Amino acid sequence: MSKTHSKSKKQKATAGLAPGTLTYVGEEKSSKVDITVIDYDGADLLEEKIIEDVRNCYDYKEKESVTWINIDGIHDTRIVKTLGMYFNLHPLLLEDIVNTHQRPKVEFYEDNIFVVMKMLNYHKETKKVEAEQVSLILGKNYVLAFQEDIEGDAFENIRERLRKKPNGKARNSNSAYLFYLLMDAIVDNYMVVIEGIGEELEELEDKIIHESAGDPTKALHKYKRQLTFVRKSIRPVREIVNNLVREEDDAGKFLKSVHFYLRDLYDHSIQVIDNTDSFIDMNSNLLDTYLSMLSNKTNDVMKVLTIFSTIFMPLTFIVGVYGMNFDSMPEVHTKYGYYIIWVVMICTATILFYYFRRKRWL
Amino acid sequence: MSKTHSKSKKQKATAGLAPGTLTYVGEEKSSKVDITVIDYDGADLLEEKIIEDVRNCYDYKEKESVTWINIDGIHDTRIVKTLGMYFNLHPLLLEDIVNTHQRPKVEFYEDNIFVVMKMLNYHKETKKVEAEQVSLILGKNYVLAFQEDIEGDAFENIRERLRKKPNGKARNSNSAYLFYLLMDAIVDNYMVVIEGIGEELEELEDKIIHESAGDPTKALHKYKRQLTFVRKSIRPVREIVNNLVREEDDAGKFLKSVHFYLRDLYDHSIQVIDNTDSFIDMNSNLLDTYLSMLSNKTNDVMKVLTIFSTIFMPLTFIVGVYGMNFDSMPEVHTKYGYYIIWVVMICTATILFYYFRRKRWL
Amino acid sequence: MSKTHSKSKKQKATAGLAPGTLTYVGEEKSSKVDITVIDYDGADLLEEKIIEDVRNCYDYKEKESVTWINIDGIHDTRIVKTLGMYFNLHPLLLEDIVNTHQRPKVEFYEDNIFVVMKMLNYHKETKKVEAEQVSLILGKNYVLAFQEDIEGDAFENIRERLRKKPNGKARNSNSAYLFYLLMDAIVDNYMVVIEGIGEELEELEDKIIHESAGDPTKALHKYKRQLTFVRKSIRPVREIVNNLVREEDDAGKFLKSVHFYLRDLYDHSIQVIDNTDSFIDMNSNLLDTYLSMLSNKTNDVMKVLTIFSTIFMPLTFIVGVYGMNFDSMPEVHTKYGYYIIWVVMICTATILFYYFRRKRWL
Amino acid sequence: MSKTHSKSKKQKATAGLAPGTLTYVGEEKSSKVDITVIDYDGADLLEEKIIEDVRNCYDYKEKESVTWINIDGIHDTRIVKTLGMYFNLHPLLLEDIVNTHQRPKVEFYEDNIFVVMKMLNYHKETKKVEAEQVSLILGKNYVLAFQEDIEGDAFENIRERLRKKPNGKARNSNSAYLFYLLMDAIVDNYMVVIEGIGEELEELEDKIIHESAGDPTKALHKYKRQLTFVRKSIRPVREIVNNLVREEDDAGKFLKSVHFYLRDLYDHSIQVIDNTDSFIDMNSNLLDTYLSMLSNKTNDVMKVLTIFSTIFMPLTFIVGVYGMNFDSMPEVHTKYGYYIIWVVMICTATILFYYFRRKRWL
Amino acid sequence: MSKTHSKSKKQKATAGLAPGTLTYVGEEKSSKVDITVIDYDGADLLEEKIIEDVRNCYDYKEKESVTWINIDGIHDTRIVKTLGMYFNLHPLLLEDIVNTHQRPKVEFYEDNIFVVMKMLNYHKETKKVEAEQVSLILGKNYVLAFQEDIEGDAFENIRERLRKKPNGKARNSNSAYLFYLLMDAIVDNYMVVIEGIGEELEELEDKIIHESAGDPTKALHKYKRQLTFVRKSIRPVREIVNNLVREEDDAGKFLKSVHFYLRDLYDHSIQVIDNTDSFIDMNSNLLDTYLSMLSNKTNDVMKVLTIFSTIFMPLTFIVGVYGMNFDSMPEVHTKYGYYIIWVVMICTATILFYYFRRKRWL
Repeated sequence: MSKTHSKSKKQKATAGLAPGTLTYVGEEKSSKVDITVIDYDGADLLEEKIIEDVRNCYDYKEKESVTWINIDGIHDTRIVKTLGMYFNLHPLLLEDIVNTHQRPKVEFYEDNIFVVMKMLNYHKETKKVEAEQVSLILGKNYVLAFQEDIEGDAFENIRERLRKKPNGKARNSNSAYLFYLLMDAIVDNYMVVIEGIGEELEELEDKIIHESAGDPTKALHKYKRQLTFVRKSIRPVREIVNNLVREEDDAGKFLKSVHFYLRDLYDHSIQVIDNTDSFIDMNSNLLDTYLSMLSNKTNDVMKVLTIFSTIFMPLTFIVGVYGMNFDSMPEVHTKYGYYIIWVVMICTATILFYYFRRKRWL
Repeated sequence: MSKTHSKSKKQKATAGLAPGTLTYVGEEKSSKVDITVIDYDGADLLEEKIIEDVRNCYDYKEKESVTWINIDGIHDTRIVKTLGMYFNLHPLLLEDIVNTHQRPKVEFYEDNIFVVMKMLNYHKETKKVEAEQVSLILGKNYVLAFQEDIEGDAFENIRERLRKKPNGKARNSNSAYLFYLLMDAIVDNYMVVIEGIGEELEELEDKIIHESAGDPTKALHKYKRQLTFVRKSIRPVREIVNNLVREEDDAGKFLKSVHFYLRDLYDHSIQVIDNTDSFIDMNSNLLDTYLSMLSNKTNDVMKVLTIFSTIFMPLTFIVGVYGMNFDSMPEVHTKYGYYIIWVVMICTATILFYYFRRKRWL
Repeated sequence: MSKTHSKSKKQKATAGLAPGTLTYVGEEKSSKVDITVIDYDGADLLEEKIIEDVRNCYDYKEKESVTWINIDGIHDTRIVKTLGMYFNLHPLLLEDIVNTHQRPKVEFYEDNIFVVMKMLNYHKETKKVEAEQVSLILGKNYVLAFQEDIEGDAFENIRERLRKKPNGKARNSNSAYLFYLLMDAIVDNYMVVIEGIGEELEELEDKIIHESAGDPTKALHKYKRQLTFVRKSIRPVREIVNNLVREEDDAGKFLKSVHFYLRDLYDHSIQVIDNTDSFIDMNSNLLDTYLSMLSNKTNDVMKVLTIFSTIFMPLTFIVGVYGMNFDSMPEVHTKYGYYIIWVVMICTATILFYYFRRKRWL
Repeated sequence: MSKTHSKSKKQKATAGLAPGTLTYVGEEKSSKVDITVIDYDGADLLEEKIIEDVRNCYDYKEKESVTWINIDGIHDTRIVKTLGMYFNLHPLLLEDIVNTHQRPKVEFYEDNIFVVMKMLNYHKETKKVEAEQVSLILGKNYVLAFQEDIEGDAFENIRERLRKKPNGKARNSNSAYLFYLLMDAIVDNYMVVIEGIGEELEELEDKIIHESAGDPTKALHKYKRQLTFVRKSIRPVREIVNNLVREEDDAGKFLKSVHFYLRDLYDHSIQVIDNTDSFIDMNSNLLDTYLSMLSNKTNDVMKVLTIFSTIFMPLTFIVGVYGMNFDSMPEVHTKYGYYIIWVVMICTATILFYYFRRKRWL
Repeated sequence: MSKTHSKSKKQKATAGLAPGTLTYVGEEKSSKVDITVIDYDGADLLEEKIIEDVRNCYDYKEKESVTWINIDGIHDTRIVKTLGMYFNLHPLLLEDIVNTHQRPKVEFYEDNIFVVMKMLNYHKETKKVEAEQVSLILGKNYVLAFQEDIEGDAFENIRERLRKKPNGKARNSNSAYLFYLLMDAIVDNYMVVIEGIGEELEELEDKIIHESAGDPTKALHKYKRQLTFVRKSIRPVREIVNNLVREEDDAGKFLKSVHFYLRDLYDHSIQVIDNTDSFIDMNSNLLDTYLSMLSNKTNDVMKVLTIFSTIFMPLTFIVGVYGMNFDSMPEVHTKYGYYIIWVVMICTATILFYYFRRKRWL
């Protein structure tokens, strides 16, 4: 769990630092930070470019058109700081952006709304869920999206839609709608992750029920950890969306136009949480079921052992008796002694057999 | 669990699509969509017909009489779209209709109320609960009911009543009452499903208690899954009905006339949830009871094994001793050695017997 | 569990029926319905009579004196309907009276208050709790009490008091107080039922702790089911009483005079629920304790088996060696071979004995 | 559990009685009731006397000085009734005083506040917690304290303080402060009880962890029962104190002067509940830990048995083969047969030994 | 658990004492109490000194600059009392400071805010979490911090910052900000403790999964206890911070300037609680997983034993038969008897082998 290790080390590093100090908390990286800008309006305008110098973003702040500035990589705190200063972001907000262990939350500032969420990704090979922190800032005509520098994101669909459908709702709506679209994409993605694990869990269930799973304990443990990790990431999202809907201050008014969509997102996030809980529940049930089947098997094994032992032990004793070398053992010299002893042994075995049948062990 | 598989595949297909895009999410179907209209008032009017072209529904929107338009099959999204446009339904609402994995919910629009619920069906043979999504839209003089294209529904009784009792309450009330009737039929049906599983569970309980069940673990696991699936479908219904009762906006006023009935429905849905929880609880108790009985049996088996082993092992050892071929074994040449050894062995067995009796193993 | 079976059959019969249809849901009965009227005031009036024709009840509706009409048997729906019409009861209310699987609840109508509760009875012989549904309707000067036709009820004490204490509070109070008395009697009775089961549970606990209980699993399972059944019946009562206290509408004002008594009843019902939960908790603890003791015993049995086996197996092997018939076995021809072998065996046994002692198995 | 038995018998005796009837519910007693009065003010006055005739209390009701009337024994209901009449106590309140199974609660009457609590006592020898019911009534210048007639109480410290510190806060405050002091003493005492059980539980934990506890199951069961009993007694106290703080009616104003102290008491009672829950939690963990250790031991025992059996069974079989008396067994007549067989057996044993090592059983 | 022992002894000592009596509750100490004062403003002023006589603190109360008085050691109650009197602290507040078993809480007084928290420390060697009580009092221009006399604290970073960054936010803010900084340092420290235990737990998880852990039960039990202890200390912190944010009285206004920071602290404390709960959950899962793996192993061991026993017992019986010394045993005298018996035995073994294969035990 190298991830968690590095986490706690970083945590210690931050503990005691002045609040407001910008310290990147996450795996160390040397790669360049990618800054992409998509600037559009409902008319012909659609400008998409990669920006080298962060200062080139400044122009977009006051532009009438909707601008989506996507920053891929937050390990270069200078860039975050520079952008923060220009876009007038609160120091604590900036600190939250670079602290990759931030709990998902929403915060309402005077001229922007700040949302931190986790973007999840399920690696089928390693059976691990990875989380990438996404910070979204909704301003008047722009949305800033800060992502950790991990390949791929859940937003590609949105980009496509902006590019290809000039008459689509996305192109013709304001920045709040874009903000909603980004959150919706993340929540949609949760469902994919959950269902991915769920499918594997159902396969495992089939195997367990048909007793071809070997010991599924470790697998169940692994899924349980991934699922609880997912739940921890998803749980706060409901609350976030709920706060977005209920906020009645100036910041909230800004979201009025997408209220309907946010309520839909709210339902969506509840459904995701429901499903996660279902799978966690199913995981526990599977362990219980497996253990119960195992107890049953152990009981069966025990019965076989006991039946064999209790039938053969008396018999072995009997033959042992007549293997003794005493001088005076009258039975061994009788003519039919050997055959009588066979009869005795067969009777013994039969009686024990019926005894076990009555006990329903057979 | 092919159902869930197809579910997650579809889910992925939708993830990232523009909100508001109408994509049917469910098993693929090629069958025709059945549209039935029942139009009635308290007087003589009762018109019941099957409509081929969806546009023929348009007339009923503004008619004074109460109209129930039942659409059986939602895989043809064009029909849903056409109806949606004419009846002025919100795009997100239409999206919810065709997304068959929608969590049950209610939504209040300006001129209609939208409810999504699951209609359940318990197949005794496969011991599986199947869910069919039903979307109900209550407008001024009409109710639209969208069902997945699965044979049979829970509404036949209502149709009968409308046909046969021209003076009944159903025929003489407004569309809100029809809306209530449809919801009530679905909730009534939950009870049937729950009791169906419950009966089987009680039979299984009898078998477990009388120890004639074999290993009930798999059966219990199956029932548990079905019951939790039912609970997941039913849980939100309480909230839905509660919201219908408490809604005080324009949409809510519309329901004033059936408030009393809705409160009854609310009690009803609580009772369904109570019963489901009871059976889930009973399922867990049964597993515990079974495991405890199994532990007890294993303990009994162990005791039998141990008693036999500990009695026969020393005896077998003793006879083994006198089976040795040493030249000088004085005992074997004595006259009564053989008989003395029998006495020794009987004493040994008796002592062990009393030892086990004192330990209460016998 | 014939009770539950018949329940679900009936349930199916009702599912889909028009709401408001009066259908008796319960065991079929042919016995006559007993209608008893007690009419009294604080002065000399105390009239107690059995009524044959339900219409003879009509006079009591408007009388100034307090009247308690007790209907024993609800399978004759005509009687319920006739009374309902005269006393102006809502159709849904009547439906609830005859549906014997109604969840306990309170409903406030314009001129009466309707409460459904379960009257419980614990049969010591069958160890089963039986429930009888009681519907109480509080009107201005009367209380209607509908009971299923089961012998005996919890109200005999109240009758006695009315008869024998003309100056008692009961005789000199209004119908709301009578209403309270009836509910109080039912809740008092819960305590009797709970304590009855509790006593048996405590006896079982004693047996388990002193290990003279055999396998208590089935008994614990039975008690658990009865206790959860009781809890299901009792849980809603708290809510009912709370609603009675908090109701501030016209109906509620009616209860003002007995507010103090209702609050006492509320405390009482909480205590009943507390006790039920305690016993359910105790039941689970007992199973855990029993299982833990059983594990311990199994471990002990295993140890005995293992000690015997591991001591006698090597010995039996050794004597087996010298039972072989090889021509050239030098040891068997030595003079002291036999005695040396005994020394070897005693040493082996002693070493193993100390090995087990070190392992703390002895 | 004679206590609970007598409880339920009494309970039955009360069930159905008129509410407001004074019936002592508890163990029967014939001892005299002790009535002690302490009357004091901040100045010189401190009168402490034992009263024989209950009517001698009457004078203290209207006196300006603070009076604490302590009634030790509530089985003489006439005394309770007489006091109740004079001090103007509600009949239901009197009923609660003599019903020793009353759930702890607070009630606000027009001119007094009534609190019922349990005073607990842990007997180290019997390992049982005993509860004594204490009813406190706070009037304008007096506090009535009714206790069951059990030796000793938690108030001795308060008496001492009143006697010895004429300038202390206790002597110089009003009756509300005395009322608070009494409640505080009871809650302080809970902590003593809880810590008493806790200490023993920690000793048991040490023993379990160091495997010198024998079977701790019964002890854990006993502590669990005592702890849940304590929790049941303590839980309502938080609510009581909270109600005292929040009461804003006339009765509540009376407590204004001790608000600060009550809030402290509230924190105190939360801490007691926290600790109780901690110990209950610890109890469950200990059982789990013990069971897990036991499973591990059983597994170890099984391994020893299996290793011995699987090594010696083949060997015993081999020596058995050459113990057969067949005429033609070529091996037994060879010169080195005996030695070869030893080599075979040693190899067999060695292979099995390494097999178990590979399986990590050794 | 000497800590808890001394705790309960002290507790008993306090039980019944007058509320407001200053009695140090904790381990007895004789060391000197260290009083350190840091006095600073945004300008040049930074005075840091150790004070011998507590009365030298008095000057700082009314000074305009921000003063942090840190009292290391609370066993000398005279010092606490003297400071309390001068800084006008409520007697109950002083009592809370010296009662080291105080539950974390916040209290708002007229001219100061009082917070009690636990400062935790995880000793890797003993695997124990130690708690030190910290009481913070926020006055107009000063913060008093009372700590138990344990080496080291979590505040060193803050001191450094004050010393070294004269232009930093810390130096240029008011006492409320210092108060926040101290709380933030404590909460930051929780994370360090939690992650410390978490890391070890993850190492243990690795060992369990790779089956190299021996019996992890005791270790898991130990971590569980530490984690629940941590949770008990941390839980109330969320509530404390929440109260600080929501307080709207005079005391609350005082905190207005740091509201933003407190909300951040609130998020922070939720995250700490979340993580603690996660690890507790993981601990339980690990025990379940371990037990399930153990059951599986026991089942495997049983199978090996049973296979060996059931194969060799019949064989040993057969060779025993022909070891008997009966005069007339025709088989032993045949020429090929010996070889036939070998064939019989090999067949028996083979059949049993296939039987076990069919049962999937091999």
